[in-house]
Amino acid sequence: MASKAIAIDAMSGDFGPRVIVPATLAYLEKHPDCSAVLVGDQAQIHSLLGGSRFDRLTTVHAAEVIAMDEKPSVALRSKKQSSMRVALEMVQRGDAAACLSAGNTGALMAIGMHLLKMVEGVARPAICGAVPSLTGHSYLLDMGANVDCEAEHLLQFALMAQVLVQAVENKAAPTVTLLNNGEEEIKGNSQVKRAAELLTEHPAVNYRGYIEGHKIYQGAADIIVCDGFVGNIALKASEGVASYILERIRREIKADPISRFLAWFALPEFRRIKSKIDPRRFNGASLLGLNGVVVKSHGHADEEAFQHALHHTQQMLQVDIVQQLQAQFQ
Amino acid sequence: MASKAIAIDAMSGDFGPRVIVPATLAYLEKHPDCSAVLVGDQAQIHSLLGGSRFDRLTTVHAAEVIAMDEKPSVALRSKKQSSMRVALEMVQRGDAAACLSAGNTGALMAIGMHLLKMVEGVARPAICGAVPSLTGHSYLLDMGANVDCEAEHLLQFALMAQVLVQAVENKAAPTVTLLNNGEEEIKGNSQVKRAAELLTEHPAVNYRGYIEGHKIYQGAADIIVCDGFVGNIALKASEGVASYILERIRREIKADPISRFLAWFALPEFRRIKSKIDPRRFNGASLLGLNGVVVKSHGHADEEAFQHALHHTQQMLQVDIVQQLQAQFQ
Repeated sequence: MASKAIAIDAMSGDFGPRVIVPATLAYLEKHPDCSAVLVGDQAQIHSLLGGSRFDRLTTVHAAEVIAMDEKPSVALRSKKQSSMRVALEMVQRGDAAACLSAGNTGALMAIGMHLLKMVEGVARPAICGAVPSLTGHSYLLDMGANVDCEAEHLLQFALMAQVLVQAVENKAAPTVTLLNNGEEEIKGNSQVKRAAELLTEHPAVNYRGYIEGHKIYQGAADIIVCDGFVGNIALKASEGVASYILERIRREIKADPISRFLAWFALPEFRRIKSKIDPRRFNGASLLGLNGVVVKSHGHADEEAFQHALHHTQQMLQVDIVQQLQAQFQ
Repeated sequence: MASKAIAIDAMSGDFGPRVIVPATLAYLEKHPDCSAVLVGDQAQIHSLLGGSRFDRLTTVHAAEVIAMDEKPSVALRSKKQSSMRVALEMVQRGDAAACLSAGNTGALMAIGMHLLKMVEGVARPAICGAVPSLTGHSYLLDMGANVDCEAEHLLQFALMAQVLVQAVENKAAPTVTLLNNGEEEIKGNSQVKRAAELLTEHPAVNYRGYIEGHKIYQGAADIIVCDGFVGNIALKASEGVASYILERIRREIKADPISRFLAWFALPEFRRIKSKIDPRRFNGASLLGLNGVVVKSHGHADEEAFQHALHHTQQMLQVDIVQQLQAQFQ
């Protein structure tokens, strides 16, 4: 049983075990096929577990925690007892099938690469996750692992995401686009232009050209490829504008008695709408290209969001994503 | 009078003269200190002007139009009679004080640089505009002129925006930040890291470090600097997510009878809130670094948005931005 378990970095994220422990319990309750190992400070974890017990849930002690702002190279060298590293080591030894962390992305990538190595043929791993769209969702990568990318890396990102979408969404020929500053052929920085050539020439890629940032959320393609710097900025800017809009609406409603009255009356509707546009449903991004399933949760994830990251991890296990990537890059 | 006029590319944008002509008339009506020249197809412009006459409004014929997807180098070489070029030539000759266009950004930059040349000492012009924030607004640049930038260019962008904010906002030492994929010192691609060094060392820049994408709309700084590729993607992604949220809300309201009823009841409130978060108020971005005031309106601008771009152009004239930049880069 334990060899199929998800090793969870219980100390990670902005809220640590007080969100991750109850989220894990709730997820296990709903998914009898899932087993998990909570890695971190035993005292804290056990106190949060209280009387809750599952055969499918074990704990492993780890004395250290990697801070969100810690330099990845330092974390890699010095934090040998960290919850993140101990969880990744379980995957390395085959004691766990996957690792999920809401912690320091750079450290997760650095330690993951160090311990698990990369799938043969992959030059760089990339972080790939789903983003909501009007027609469902798309997969975007790289969400932030590689800040300086060459065209060949972008091609590989497309191929890795293709494997993921084929496996998870059961689509034979997912559509691939490149995120760009325009849709005309002349647009793009030098890497993106060269990547467009590589994608066009590749016989196994269903390449559909450039898309601009405003089309990310329109369901324009199954896969959207960009470098990690651009991916990070696009996603964070999106987060920022969503918060901005909701905060402005909140302030406007609060400032006006009629609005306050109507808002109170419409509260159930507001909640229903909010749940439909809830970004928490899309939490959980895979570090594709590692020889092991490693998933990153948003650091600010609450219990519900963390459960979605657990679900994404479980999905990656079910489709055996690593074996699929190995077959693709052989 | 004409030498202080704004030459308006009346054929530009997604809607051309049928938006630009009435927007210009409405703006002139409200601003007796403004004069304008509508450049483009005389027949269309005069038919849209109808009986409206202002001493402060003239028209100049231009037989050609540059398409939104036309290659800038081709537009520069071949479209000598285009409304955009004729408007820019008026600025070059001193027959107009500024040019405003909602057309092809690349062509506006290419023809603008060709005719007006750059302010001495400026290596590359950049597109700078205001973005809304919870505390007011910030200025972001480059919004899309330069896709491949070096650190030195980013430093110059900061210096140009500083001149703009000092003049327009009357702030002696505006705060400057670099848009990055993290706030820690180790984050960033190679250009951004080097730009951070240059900004830190510069005695005249009130540099405040990196900001992440989600802080763009929080009013974290007066000036946010990035390359044009990243700036374009950040803004377009923001546009995309805003449309996504509003469209999802619209669909949810439509799908449910109770919501539809409440929405109808709350319509005036909705309108008030919408006007408060209206991005049209921020339309109009300056091509900073040219020897002349050149302003770009969003291609999809409606009448109200285009009036805001006219207002931004007028502001740039009032503070004599070109002379200020010349003094800074001397």
